[in-house]
Amino acid sequence: MLRRSRARIHDSDAKYNATSLVLAADLAGSFIFAVEGALSAIAGNLDLLGIAVLSFATALCGGMVRDLLIGAVPPNAIRDWRYCAVAFAAAGLTFLLWPFVEHVPKPIIIGLDAAGLSLFAVAGAEKALDYGIQPFIAALMGAITAAGGGTIRDVLLAHVPGVLRVDIYATAALFGSVIVVLGRALRLPPLPVAISGGLACFVLRLVAVWQNWQLPHAG
Amino acid sequence: MLRRSRARIHDSDAKYNATSLVLAADLAGSFIFAVEGALSAIAGNLDLLGIAVLSFATALCGGMVRDLLIGAVPPNAIRDWRYCAVAFAAAGLTFLLWPFVEHVPKPIIIGLDAAGLSLFAVAGAEKALDYGIQPFIAALMGAITAAGGGTIRDVLLAHVPGVLRVDIYATAALFGSVIVVLGRALRLPPLPVAISGGLACFVLRLVAVWQNWQLPHAG
Amino acid sequence: MLRRSRARIHDSDAKYNATSLVLAADLAGSFIFAVEGALSAIAGNLDLLGIAVLSFATALCGGMVRDLLIGAVPPNAIRDWRYCAVAFAAAGLTFLLWPFVEHVPKPIIIGLDAAGLSLFAVAGAEKALDYGIQPFIAALMGAITAAGGGTIRDVLLAHVPGVLRVDIYATAALFGSVIVVLGRALRLPPLPVAISGGLACFVLRLVAVWQNWQLPHAG
Repeated sequence: MLRRSRARIHDSDAKYNATSLVLAADLAGSFIFAVEGALSAIAGNLDLLGIAVLSFATALCGGMVRDLLIGAVPPNAIRDWRYCAVAFAAAGLTFLLWPFVEHVPKPIIIGLDAAGLSLFAVAGAEKALDYGIQPFIAALMGAITAAGGGTIRDVLLAHVPGVLRVDIYATAALFGSVIVVLGRALRLPPLPVAISGGLACFVLRLVAVWQNWQLPHAG
Repeated sequence: MLRRSRARIHDSDAKYNATSLVLAADLAGSFIFAVEGALSAIAGNLDLLGIAVLSFATALCGGMVRDLLIGAVPPNAIRDWRYCAVAFAAAGLTFLLWPFVEHVPKPIIIGLDAAGLSLFAVAGAEKALDYGIQPFIAALMGAITAAGGGTIRDVLLAHVPGVLRVDIYATAALFGSVIVVLGRALRLPPLPVAISGGLACFVLRLVAVWQNWQLPHAG
Repeated sequence: MLRRSRARIHDSDAKYNATSLVLAADLAGSFIFAVEGALSAIAGNLDLLGIAVLSFATALCGGMVRDLLIGAVPPNAIRDWRYCAVAFAAAGLTFLLWPFVEHVPKPIIIGLDAAGLSLFAVAGAEKALDYGIQPFIAALMGAITAAGGGTIRDVLLAHVPGVLRVDIYATAALFGSVIVVLGRALRLPPLPVAISGGLACFVLRLVAVWQNWQLPHAG
């Protein structure tokens, strides 16, 4: 069964290379997350190396954890140098252009972040399904891909990860992943399913920020 | 050699399915740890997602780290949806029944926790041995299985893990694992060895709590 | 391709066994880092188990993360019991001889630490190259091998990792790794390349401490 699912992966790899649209989108998402990681590092008064490490962690560690767990070793971010190059380029640009980046209006950053979140959730769930992971867990892998990097960034800053305390963030990623997994289980056509999952995550995230929705706390 | 140890694993998988007692015990241990994770999350004022994540981490991350290190990929908790289902069910129940769970007498929680610890230590050491890991390291893997989840939970709460500071906790797990490993090295019958290891861990843990035993500090 | 790179690894494993000098150096580096981990644990008022865990983490987790990422599973530190034995021996000795260890002059500790850093950076980059990892990423793996353990130690102590805030530390490791990777790419003879990379890391680290060089911060 492992061999069969590996074969399916090679097919989908071929498909990915063919389109290369997905790769571009993935790198764009990594760039956005890396910029956010660099901004957190600067806010935490880290040095240039710390900025590079937090860019790397925020952009790539979610996908790396997913790849380790589903058995896709070495992870994408280690196999393909372009992911690291994008993360470090984002770190360097944020460092150099910091006074400007700092003044990017908040709504634009939130919108870009929601786009990255949606993309990572959809791509993460699809990759887990391609590796033969059960649907329920594959949806979880989508959420880990999308929210895992920010969680590790917060741990490195010795903060309780924001994602565990406030906001509809990982929840939005999970929502998008679940739609992807359901669509695949119902054998709906892949592209519309992926777009629906991504849009669902994106819209839920933005509406949640706009309306200041929160998950319930106990007690 | 890898192939041979894989073959032994399939045998033991067959044995596990045959009995299914072990699976039930493993899921019961996961449930207990997940409830404890949820209680920590509520104490740390995390939201519903944070509660789910801490349940998952406390119950399953010890075993996941073990599986990644011994090369059992994807880890059990990713391969079999029932582990995640148990962790999230525990999170949901703890969230809903929180006022009642909070009033469960402390000794009962300590006893259940010690039972989970013993179970995970024994199962973790046995799985490592099945994968051809050296005895000395296999005992360590038992302790990581048992105490690793709580360590990651504490890191996510930005605390120094309690297991590193106070109590005979991971030490009790290590004690049980060592007995399992020694018993196997002496080719004693597996079931009595497993029960002895589990009991040793359980009793040491309870006596240590009762007598307030502590490991020495330097200085 | 994986199969081919595995073959190359077995060759280099044979070579490693032949010399066994490299193994001795690797264990020596682990010993130094483990002593430093134990000292951090004592400074953080951890108990004997915490001291053992921080020794283990500081000495071995950098290499373990590298091995997981490049697909060398089980990692060296799990496959070969001598690594764990060295880490725990260092923990025990530091615990017992703490009043003496504490009075070791700072320059000696810094010098030994820089030696361990250099060794791990060179060995980490070489192992990644042996596993067919791309040069740019292999250099990164060298830095992770050298600085990853200390990072995880700081996370366990709930500190922001020092390596992200101050000092030319991981940067020195990266410098040494880059030299190794460049030398291999230019097909220069391996031994002089390894020595040059190690020396470059060692000297940069010591000069940086001596001159109190820091990486730039933003803002």
